[in-house]
Amino acid sequence: MRIAIDAMGGDLGPRATVTGSLQALAMHSNLEIQMHGPRDALEAELESLPKRLSGHRSRLVLQHAPRVISQAMRVANAVREASGTSMLGAIASVRDGQADACVSAGNTGALMALARRELGTVKGIARPAISTAVPTQGGGRCYLLDLGANVGVQARHLVDFARMGAIMARVIDDTATPRVALLNIGVEASKGVPSVREADECLRQGVACHRDGYGFEYIGYLEGDGVFSGAADVVVCDGFVGNAVLKASEGLATMLLARLQETFEAHFTTRVVRAMARPALLRLKRRLDPVRYNGASLLGLSGIVVKSHGGADAKGFAYAISRAVREVDMDLPSHLARELGDAVRPEPSILSVDSDIGRADSGLANDAQPDDSNPQR
Amino acid sequence: MRIAIDAMGGDLGPRATVTGSLQALAMHSNLEIQMHGPRDALEAELESLPKRLSGHRSRLVLQHAPRVISQAMRVANAVREASGTSMLGAIASVRDGQADACVSAGNTGALMALARRELGTVKGIARPAISTAVPTQGGGRCYLLDLGANVGVQARHLVDFARMGAIMARVIDDTATPRVALLNIGVEASKGVPSVREADECLRQGVACHRDGYGFEYIGYLEGDGVFSGAADVVVCDGFVGNAVLKASEGLATMLLARLQETFEAHFTTRVVRAMARPALLRLKRRLDPVRYNGASLLGLSGIVVKSHGGADAKGFAYAISRAVREVDMDLPSHLARELGDAVRPEPSILSVDSDIGRADSGLANDAQPDDSNPQR
Repeated sequence: MRIAIDAMGGDLGPRATVTGSLQALAMHSNLEIQMHGPRDALEAELESLPKRLSGHRSRLVLQHAPRVISQAMRVANAVREASGTSMLGAIASVRDGQADACVSAGNTGALMALARRELGTVKGIARPAISTAVPTQGGGRCYLLDLGANVGVQARHLVDFARMGAIMARVIDDTATPRVALLNIGVEASKGVPSVREADECLRQGVACHRDGYGFEYIGYLEGDGVFSGAADVVVCDGFVGNAVLKASEGLATMLLARLQETFEAHFTTRVVRAMARPALLRLKRRLDPVRYNGASLLGLSGIVVKSHGGADAKGFAYAISRAVREVDMDLPSHLARELGDAVRPEPSILSVDSDIGRADSGLANDAQPDDSNPQR
Repeated sequence: MRIAIDAMGGDLGPRATVTGSLQALAMHSNLEIQMHGPRDALEAELESLPKRLSGHRSRLVLQHAPRVISQAMRVANAVREASGTSMLGAIASVRDGQADACVSAGNTGALMALARRELGTVKGIARPAISTAVPTQGGGRCYLLDLGANVGVQARHLVDFARMGAIMARVIDDTATPRVALLNIGVEASKGVPSVREADECLRQGVACHRDGYGFEYIGYLEGDGVFSGAADVVVCDGFVGNAVLKASEGLATMLLARLQETFEAHFTTRVVRAMARPALLRLKRRLDPVRYNGASLLGLSGIVVKSHGGADAKGFAYAISRAVREVDMDLPSHLARELGDAVRPEPSILSVDSDIGRADSGLANDAQPDDSNPQR
């Protein structure tokens, strides 16, 4: 298995991506890594690494890419000027069959736009989405999507997100029949915006009329707390909402960690207690910061692309690579293509006349230019 | 000062509201409370209370209201059948000048709809909003609005929210020049939905062209993590987004508390360490659960109405009453009326032709029927 890495573009530079790549090589003995970036910078980084990591150096090849797409770059500009960049290099390796997946910590909007252009989408999916798994009460996890690739979505996009998220939970996490919910501001049928109510109706009908069902259990509406409660395996929403929820959760976790630290420093004055508390705190810290320690998947592309958090350290980047390894192992794009490409869609006529689903063209018209979004710095 | 309490409607029943009211009386020596609810139930509750609270009983009067609006009731039904309910009784006391403010832990949508009908709105405000303060890094707080009273807002509503939130921060928290931000999925000008971009333009122009400014500093876009980072005193967004963010934060805090507890139980096996950790944990628990321990204000009404969290215990309900006390002390509605009612609005003509602000009618048409939303169970 070979994974292409965009070594540039994360907030911490090639230090995090190079070290993270070697850590991932240590974890996966069948893995090879192809690193895209300025050769001199990457070689210097490799030179300076501790000896214990260099044993895996033989499974890492460098692929020179002189240019970098910055986090601040506008998507349109990034796409136009992508030639020679580490991001395009890594994606093109997947396109050309030289790599099985690609991982980047760079500009999310540019990554999505370039990946769409170079890899294309799964048949039947108009809008790829970004998804990550957050930890839930009881020790499980919940896939949240979309995280910012699509703002102002229509009902049919929410339905697509539901189906993609369910396939993800089934294929990657072995959840036999994923419970899928729509995020709403109340659980009663009368609440929410038209696109959400429409998607609700469509999912109820679709799950019912599909011969084998959709392969998931649609459980209706959940409010924001449902993302973390363990009530669902997949929660679906518009990209603006998902992005705000994920980032706010990240901000809250950061704040709580800081306060936890303060509380301990203020109240556990004896050295022995602080020493005992430290390992527990460290363990907790990693659990409390799911966002930084997970990759996000670009779902619906004809290829595997994982976005690592822009602020991820080496360990976080290694986790993102592991997510890509898992998606390759399970052949996620084939599952998506098989289940979504051939799927019989519920006919628009059985829905209300005002259905978003009837107005397919207007939605697709916007698709040529993906939203300039950046769910993870 | 007299505050009218809707004793019914919270998840924990009159136990929490009665005890919380007596706790609030203990905190505020100039406070009188008028409790609306079924007389027999309330008297039974008062009888069963511990002696130490009964000293304040003389400043509490009961107002019989035989009926209750339930959490599950649809707003339209609740409004139609409000006669004789504890919620309408409490609101009507404010309307008739018998009370200075009203506090309820009941159905938020019904509370907003009834309060609008009975009290009216501040001149110049088309859509009242719901706002609460969340704690921020560094020990400050940030007002987030709207939390679910308005979904699918236009730019001019976001501008109104910005101005109301700023007045709240200035009047209630003594923040001299509140920093106000718009929630968006990126900080670049090209990102987000049209209403948010339009509001951004309008706020920039409004703050500039207003003779004395708006009395706040508009700092542009923030992403979700900005709600907790301390970067802003007020963060403004559509009610669907704010509701999802607030509820998700609540869910995350709950999950983290549970994990924190587990971590301690698993790793601090000696009794003495656990005993030492307990007070720190309890203190933290209250800080980590800002949502349950704060009231939310219904902003833009011609009267003070505070929503306590539906799941609030007595202490949480007492905090909500304290918030109402503070708003009465500072005469919040007069500040809103003075600053918003007479304000010169930026002219639509200086904005783009497609401005939401130009299409005032379509926005107002929906206002007769407030959204059936319920930001806090």
